[in-house]
Amino acid sequence: MKLFVVGIGPGKIEYMSNYAIDVLKKVDYIVGYTKYIDRIKKYFNEKNFIHTGMRKEVERVKHAVGKVNEGYNVAIVSSGDSGVYGMASLAISLCENVEIVPGITAANSAAALLGAPLTLDFAVISMSDILVEWEKIVMRATYFAKSGVTTVIYNPISKIRKHQLKKVFEIFKKERNEFYIGIVKNAFLPNQRSYYIKSTSNIDWINDIDMMSIVFFCDENTIEKNNKIYVPRGYKQ
Amino acid sequence: MKLFVVGIGPGKIEYMSNYAIDVLKKVDYIVGYTKYIDRIKKYFNEKNFIHTGMRKEVERVKHAVGKVNEGYNVAIVSSGDSGVYGMASLAISLCENVEIVPGITAANSAAALLGAPLTLDFAVISMSDILVEWEKIVMRATYFAKSGVTTVIYNPISKIRKHQLKKVFEIFKKERNEFYIGIVKNAFLPNQRSYYIKSTSNIDWINDIDMMSIVFFCDENTIEKNNKIYVPRGYKQ
Repeated sequence: MKLFVVGIGPGKIEYMSNYAIDVLKKVDYIVGYTKYIDRIKKYFNEKNFIHTGMRKEVERVKHAVGKVNEGYNVAIVSSGDSGVYGMASLAISLCENVEIVPGITAANSAAALLGAPLTLDFAVISMSDILVEWEKIVMRATYFAKSGVTTVIYNPISKIRKHQLKKVFEIFKKERNEFYIGIVKNAFLPNQRSYYIKSTSNIDWINDIDMMSIVFFCDENTIEKNNKIYVPRGYKQ
Repeated sequence: MKLFVVGIGPGKIEYMSNYAIDVLKKVDYIVGYTKYIDRIKKYFNEKNFIHTGMRKEVERVKHAVGKVNEGYNVAIVSSGDSGVYGMASLAISLCENVEIVPGITAANSAAALLGAPLTLDFAVISMSDILVEWEKIVMRATYFAKSGVTTVIYNPISKIRKHQLKKVFEIFKKERNEFYIGIVKNAFLPNQRSYYIKSTSNIDWINDIDMMSIVFFCDENTIEKNNKIYVPRGYKQ
């Protein structure tokens, strides 16, 4: 029996791959964080769902592996791509027979709403210092800022973490000239909102960031046109 | 009328989103690089296809915009995500009414075949110095190597570019201790192949890299288990 780790993309069935949908239709159990299960439940009526709350990741994967060992096919769902800050890593560590089913990661879905801020090289960093030391996050943010690439910030803020984003923004301000900041909330979900501002604005934008936001500190070459921002690819037109 | 820029993921219809499929069914024209059009043609029989060869990107997008201006809905397809080294940027620069339809980018689909090398922060870099100066690529590779993150290498080699990958590998060797190298060829397509080796191996692996390969220089914390490599997320188990 097999454990599938399925990326469900931004969470609307329209943005899931057909293969991911087929897998979820075929397995005996679908396991996931309560909020993600709520998003997809209506599309897979006949299934057995197992859901747990935040911070119950290890418990959730162990539960799924238990069901595999009992002889069932099981899928664990992750929002975005299951391999990016997702459950794939834990699943591989706890189960011999795992298939990773990729999905559209938040960096790509959020970028699509802003324009094309990821045209060229880019980097992805999480502000969460629960599982990673803060010093390492600062070190990485500094190198990404120096590299000049558009940097996508996952988990920018949470109820218990408030100051990390502002500190990393200050690092980027120090290393770069003016740059665009892109903000996307609830990408492809109800209450979706996306906009961009310049780093020269006052920093009130930080107060608007919540747990459902993805933030982009853009490449200095980013251009604004037709209500979108994009990094030019460099073609001679 | 509207120009859609559609990411088709690895190229098999099973890994496209349902929304991307709906868009391609609905538009009047589908425009793209000949090789990508060949992959999807059979699924959209009734459509008018416009395809051009390599390096004809600007011509292709102008052709598509011309059709929009004539009153048609048009889709341009890109493999992977249309915003990552894709056509989204050029489309926004040339057309007022553009919708970007995200897809599963090669970094995520290739990673799924190796395990979970992108669990935590990561960076993406292209070896192509046709549109980006080589000095900038070296600078970025050096910062990414120092940052410690798994770095995904797009366009590692081409018929006219052979030496860049070896030079960037040497940069990583200098900045890091031993690390895993993941190699994925033809992800989710015929002749798919994926494997990983350690950076201490002799460098014959470089001779196996072709234009359809994606290369991962992994985070030093990467672990091998159950025939997969993954970056542990740090949970207490």
